[in-house]
Amino acid sequence: MLGPDGTPALDPQHAALRVLARADQLATLSSMHQGIERVFLSPEHAAAHALAGDWMEQAGMTTWRDEVGNQCGRRAVDVPDAPALLIGSHLDSVPDAGRYDGILGVLIAIEVAERLAEVELPFAVEVVAFGDEEGTRFGTTLLGSRALAGTWQPEWTELHDQDGITLGEAAQDFGLDPERIALAARAPGSLIGYLEVHIEQGPKLEQQNRPLGVVTGIAAAERRLIRFIGESRHAATPWELRQDALLAAAEAIVAIERIAREQRSNATVGHIRVEPDAVNVVAGMAEISLDLRDVNEKERDEVWSAIRSELQSICLGRGIDFEVESVHRANAAVCDPGLKSAITAGIRSATGEERPMELLSVAGHDAMAVAAATGIAMMFVRCAGGISHSPDESVTAEDVAVAIDAMHAAVLELAMRVAAGDPDAAA
Amino acid sequence: MLGPDGTPALDPQHAALRVLARADQLATLSSMHQGIERVFLSPEHAAAHALAGDWMEQAGMTTWRDEVGNQCGRRAVDVPDAPALLIGSHLDSVPDAGRYDGILGVLIAIEVAERLAEVELPFAVEVVAFGDEEGTRFGTTLLGSRALAGTWQPEWTELHDQDGITLGEAAQDFGLDPERIALAARAPGSLIGYLEVHIEQGPKLEQQNRPLGVVTGIAAAERRLIRFIGESRHAATPWELRQDALLAAAEAIVAIERIAREQRSNATVGHIRVEPDAVNVVAGMAEISLDLRDVNEKERDEVWSAIRSELQSICLGRGIDFEVESVHRANAAVCDPGLKSAITAGIRSATGEERPMELLSVAGHDAMAVAAATGIAMMFVRCAGGISHSPDESVTAEDVAVAIDAMHAAVLELAMRVAAGDPDAAA
Repeated sequence: MLGPDGTPALDPQHAALRVLARADQLATLSSMHQGIERVFLSPEHAAAHALAGDWMEQAGMTTWRDEVGNQCGRRAVDVPDAPALLIGSHLDSVPDAGRYDGILGVLIAIEVAERLAEVELPFAVEVVAFGDEEGTRFGTTLLGSRALAGTWQPEWTELHDQDGITLGEAAQDFGLDPERIALAARAPGSLIGYLEVHIEQGPKLEQQNRPLGVVTGIAAAERRLIRFIGESRHAATPWELRQDALLAAAEAIVAIERIAREQRSNATVGHIRVEPDAVNVVAGMAEISLDLRDVNEKERDEVWSAIRSELQSICLGRGIDFEVESVHRANAAVCDPGLKSAITAGIRSATGEERPMELLSVAGHDAMAVAAATGIAMMFVRCAGGISHSPDESVTAEDVAVAIDAMHAAVLELAMRVAAGDPDAAA
Repeated sequence: MLGPDGTPALDPQHAALRVLARADQLATLSSMHQGIERVFLSPEHAAAHALAGDWMEQAGMTTWRDEVGNQCGRRAVDVPDAPALLIGSHLDSVPDAGRYDGILGVLIAIEVAERLAEVELPFAVEVVAFGDEEGTRFGTTLLGSRALAGTWQPEWTELHDQDGITLGEAAQDFGLDPERIALAARAPGSLIGYLEVHIEQGPKLEQQNRPLGVVTGIAAAERRLIRFIGESRHAATPWELRQDALLAAAEAIVAIERIAREQRSNATVGHIRVEPDAVNVVAGMAEISLDLRDVNEKERDEVWSAIRSELQSICLGRGIDFEVESVHRANAAVCDPGLKSAITAGIRSATGEERPMELLSVAGHDAMAVAAATGIAMMFVRCAGGISHSPDESVTAEDVAVAIDAMHAAVLELAMRVAAGDPDAAA
């Protein structure tokens, strides 16, 4: 079997099975007794990155760990100081995670780099496995990719986990120098662009019976904590004297769904906590999280504005105070037209589809952080039922094989354009 | 100043101030850094009961700790094997509690016993400070009063607290023999009845500007845990694919309020917990508590039936499963007419009110457990704003003084009837 450029390619089915086997192996590196949890700067993080580093070396790359703990590998070229095309994703996870979110993108990147080993390219290919995208441990997301993109904030070393350990302390225990994390930043001139493969985390590819899709951009997102302050009262308290914080929160959760659906937007309340949290005490405090995502900042903020005014009306009616804290805010990221068209060409080559499907990513990705340093593009792989952040995450070997082919073809397409001096090859 | 029977009475204002000072002293015995929490078989329980035992002895009583850890004191009479009138309440607390719920009843009982020291009575007076009413530590309520009433269940020694310590182990650490707890049961023939003073935990006395009220009975109660089972999904999941357990729970909480208010009943959801409880994951599981109380079992169960059918409809619409676990069930307790009329006479004597106010207790009390062994009656004391199970619980010295007078008068009224051979003095 020959690759699109006529060079011998490894058996794609074999490569896909190796990706799935490696995902299974990474799934054993977990801090949960049952289920997968692998957080930034943990022993499991170290073990997963060591494995990924081994695989990168087996694929012919020079490897290193950068200043924030990302695992990197480079397939050098003969051109001195050649800029690099980055391909990657993350190896950390949410609690009770699946085995493909992030991981699949890293493993496919390694396969693509290996398949390109004998090919002459006008740029270096680097694979990067980010140490934090989910933000599970320190509450702030994209720590690995933001350091690489040069948007690391020094005060993040003061973030702390549930046990009170600061990020700075954890970095030190991990063998990093917290004062040097910002040096993980890549000089924009050293980069051609960034490509990322990720499971779709949605059902659209499956519904249209397609293995792959090209991402147009990543939704604008904001995460807030909303606290409702009422009064702790005995369960015997008559209705008219209650200021029940949980009832206000429950009304708010129902209203948030209604408003976001009406505005065809995306909203999630995934966290709730009440005080004193006792069977026979009316809750005096209820805290909920609110995760809003939309195609751009304007739409997202219009949804919030409608929710906020509903919160005011709910709380006024119940004698409840509320306060809002913004804990994460990300503008929409638009994929680079040149890189995106290379992905499209790759999918076309691998699937034979004349017009590969385009999708907006409602989920956030490392790519949105990397966009601060270089152009980005992404490819989605169909996942069963659109399920992710769950042990039920699932992909097929067939789809993974096609994804490897498509990414391989996309890199060759880019190489051709760069070699031809195309100024729009990548932004 | 003379008591109602002509004997010298202690200055009631002095006794009331002593009650408040002792409540302040007990409030310092807490397992919380700030705020009050004192749970069954804890070091704070031991310390509080030791203090109460000292005060009982100062009031002229013989004291002992019974087999379940209740602190008891007896003011004996010359009649051999004289039956006892029990007066008491509990010294344990919910988390972040006030300083009067339960405690006030024990402290007033001690004052009443002391004031009766020189009076000849046809029965013994016993004060009992129950070790568990709230059920904070082991989830099951009224453990002290149920042991005394002879309804202790041997399997309760297997109940365990949040740290996995069983009740049996805790009893042993406390110096009790878990095999002998059931021996705390009092022979019904040894009891005249049980009287309890408690803060109202409601606003009705305050609204009617009265210090005291006579309780007609205690509401039927049931506590359930309801678990909604949906599917954990990434926050990017489109609405139509979500089976959001928290949204089902939120709709349920709002519906529970609506149904209970329509039926003029009492319902509280004070506990909620979701899994995985992450900002960017649709909740796959939500658990809520439901505390229902009504004048009798029939009304209570009708409310549940309406709630249950609403839960079915909510869950059907959302593709959610739910399961219900009953964790506590108490029938309504009706106060004994003879004992209740003695309380009424006591309030009449202390306040001059011709028709003391009658109230149904929506809150549960030790009296409902003791009702299995002997007749019960209760007196409520006005509390500020009807607030309880909160640090803001508050009573006035004036009301406490009137409450001591009223209970003293109630016991003398009972004594008079028993001495006169009134068969309806107490059940």
